Amino acid sequence: MKDSSGETMLNQVCNDLDRIRERHPLVHNITNYVVMNFTANALLALGASPIMAHAAEEMDEMLELAGALVLNIGTLSAAWVDSMFHAATAARRGSVPIVLDPVGAGATRFRTETARRLIMEARPSVIRGNASEILSLAGHFGQPKGVDAVHDTHEAAHAASALARSSGAVVAVTGHEDLVTDGVKLVRINNGHPLMGRVTGTGCAATAIVGAFCAVESDMLIASVGALLAFGVAGEQAARTNPGPGTYQMLLLDALDGLSPALIGMKARIAIGDCTADQ
Amino acid sequence: MKDSSGETMLNQVCNDLDRIRERHPLVHNITNYVVMNFTANALLALGASPIMAHAAEEMDEMLELAGALVLNIGTLSAAWVDSMFHAATAARRGSVPIVLDPVGAGATRFRTETARRLIMEARPSVIRGNASEILSLAGHFGQPKGVDAVHDTHEAAHAASALARSSGAVVAVTGHEDLVTDGVKLVRINNGHPLMGRVTGTGCAATAIVGAFCAVESDMLIASVGALLAFGVAGEQAARTNPGPGTYQMLLLDALDGLSPALIGMKARIAIGDCTADQ
Amino acid sequence: MKDSSGETMLNQVCNDLDRIRERHPLVHNITNYVVMNFTANALLALGASPIMAHAAEEMDEMLELAGALVLNIGTLSAAWVDSMFHAATAARRGSVPIVLDPVGAGATRFRTETARRLIMEARPSVIRGNASEILSLAGHFGQPKGVDAVHDTHEAAHAASALARSSGAVVAVTGHEDLVTDGVKLVRINNGHPLMGRVTGTGCAATAIVGAFCAVESDMLIASVGALLAFGVAGEQAARTNPGPGTYQMLLLDALDGLSPALIGMKARIAIGDCTADQ
Repeated sequence: MKDSSGETMLNQVCNDLDRIRERHPLVHNITNYVVMNFTANALLALGASPIMAHAAEEMDEMLELAGALVLNIGTLSAAWVDSMFHAATAARRGSVPIVLDPVGAGATRFRTETARRLIMEARPSVIRGNASEILSLAGHFGQPKGVDAVHDTHEAAHAASALARSSGAVVAVTGHEDLVTDGVKLVRINNGHPLMGRVTGTGCAATAIVGAFCAVESDMLIASVGALLAFGVAGEQAARTNPGPGTYQMLLLDALDGLSPALIGMKARIAIGDCTADQ
Repeated sequence: MKDSSGETMLNQVCNDLDRIRERHPLVHNITNYVVMNFTANALLALGASPIMAHAAEEMDEMLELAGALVLNIGTLSAAWVDSMFHAATAARRGSVPIVLDPVGAGATRFRTETARRLIMEARPSVIRGNASEILSLAGHFGQPKGVDAVHDTHEAAHAASALARSSGAVVAVTGHEDLVTDGVKLVRINNGHPLMGRVTGTGCAATAIVGAFCAVESDMLIASVGALLAFGVAGEQAARTNPGPGTYQMLLLDALDGLSPALIGMKARIAIGDCTADQ
Repeated sequence: MKDSSGETMLNQVCNDLDRIRERHPLVHNITNYVVMNFTANALLALGASPIMAHAAEEMDEMLELAGALVLNIGTLSAAWVDSMFHAATAARRGSVPIVLDPVGAGATRFRTETARRLIMEARPSVIRGNASEILSLAGHFGQPKGVDAVHDTHEAAHAASALARSSGAVVAVTGHEDLVTDGVKLVRINNGHPLMGRVTGTGCAATAIVGAFCAVESDMLIASVGALLAFGVAGEQAARTNPGPGTYQMLLLDALDGLSPALIGMKARIAIGDCTADQ
């Protein structure tokens, strides 16, 4: 259902996509080893410019060039977490929006605590996770199995709102249905395809794409909705020929490249509500 | 040739594949940077759940969640080797089977000695390597060129049996023909395709897939045979359209996803013998 | 335009391609996390043997096996830079040619200074970069945005010649038009396709392929021309079906595998001049 505020939001999302293609914003990633290549290619396919760098020696200069900073704890170690805090400080100094992907939060104390410290001290503009991760960060400790979600996004709606209010960040939860909330508004996105769960790094790519949208859009709720909507529509387009998961990984990049405002307008399935009504 | 014990083994392999798809066992990998993405996607395509983590801070908790631990020394460094020993201790405490990939053993002393220490101290349930690697570990020092095999698997049969007996591990040697032995039985698998040698990380993926089978099968010989058989049949299926090596990498993931017990039963080319008869 | 010296050079390039397929030279890479998999697959597809290793403990032995050493600072850190110097010393001791990819030189002082130190102390045989990187190293400080080139290769011709003369290395600049110079001769290559810029790591793969050619060709100018020509022709072949950037990444590997001397002879667009005439 697209009400008038939904149409307004869609128009903004489409404008943001155009801006990404015009400006090619530099998205600085401190992310995990597994997904670096796929993340960089996803950003390139969308129209953004990826950079991966973790050395303290160059962090301040890199963040002067960046339009957004993406922090992803997928293969975290103490040294890389230090880099993340260093980068976050530089980003905040330059008013560069920070997007956090708390991969595996809830699975180990190291991940949960690192994610919480990053939320408290780095103060990300957006937190993008799956339901288990968001639940664990909001204090609803589940029993996540590894880094994959075992909770439905519906269960996470309350947790997401609570986390958004306590952290001041927009919280984006991806799953069968995606949710984006700033603690007041709650946007539901029903795009995407089950094959996205059969490719490693699609969640991480979603987070990086949030970074690309944040680099061109000052409203973090709209940026997050735009990213998940764009990625969800790309995910649907890539699945049209019913490919296997290997082929799908490449078709997903092709589909990000092939996204247009018209296609997004045609395929978008979003609903805007508010948190209190929803809870 | 499939004798009655071959049929029994095939049935067990097919049951194990079904179990992987039902249980999605978590396979914990401490592996090399080059293959992390492909390995994760291979495990996902097969039906398992991959996790890559190397930080000491979370190793014990991760291993409580894992169904198998895969150690791969492809881009080893002292710090990562420490992580491997830490993980191995946690795995043994929880009776989690350990699979070792001694990438490049024989090429440098650092690799050979690290692999030997891991065999002695971590006590893997399965060692999966190419002929040169297994020969170097069994004390038959060849002159491996880098990390690729220069010996035929036939030459490695004796070395594999000897290594299996001295280490207590099942030893799996991949090549033109694959061999799996526990030092008593020797299973030969004649599946697979030459294109597998044109894609980086297929050996490493084979090892990870052994991990997935070990997570659902208590007989390590059967688990190893099942993994190499499944991967070999997938390798054949992926080559049917005679693709180039780039396209083949994706089709191999599609084929892992498309594997069925019926297909494995139809395509399997295994022969079960014993080591003394073979030597 | 192919003059007689152009034909001679083309013949040498085609012979070098054949030699790579016959000898499968081992190319040792200390490169960035983002591109390791793609680089290894590009070398394999071409016919070379990739190895990625960064541990000091095994560097000397690895370099005894290697036909070329490729140093790439794409995700540099102090520890990895140390490894690069260690490897360079071992390579020089064994007369193994060194190829440097100064990823992001000019973007941060750490990168510019590391690249300069590597040029001064490791004394690479070839430096392969984009126009911004080469300009920054030649002292013409531009304002590169991240790691992507913002200067045209034409602007870089003078800088490349100057850098070649001051460093003693062959300098290869890739872009819309590729340039290769030893400070005296200047070869222009007009192969390649814009899609190459839409896939992360194509520049890094070009550098690795220079390494493969250097392993079988003693004339570093010819090796560099051969590599960029081979990669450019592969880039054109891969684009024939007008694929998206995801599919293109795989087709590029297929095309490297499918390269033949005849195809290179038919498609090559090179012009040989000299630096003074050009400036």
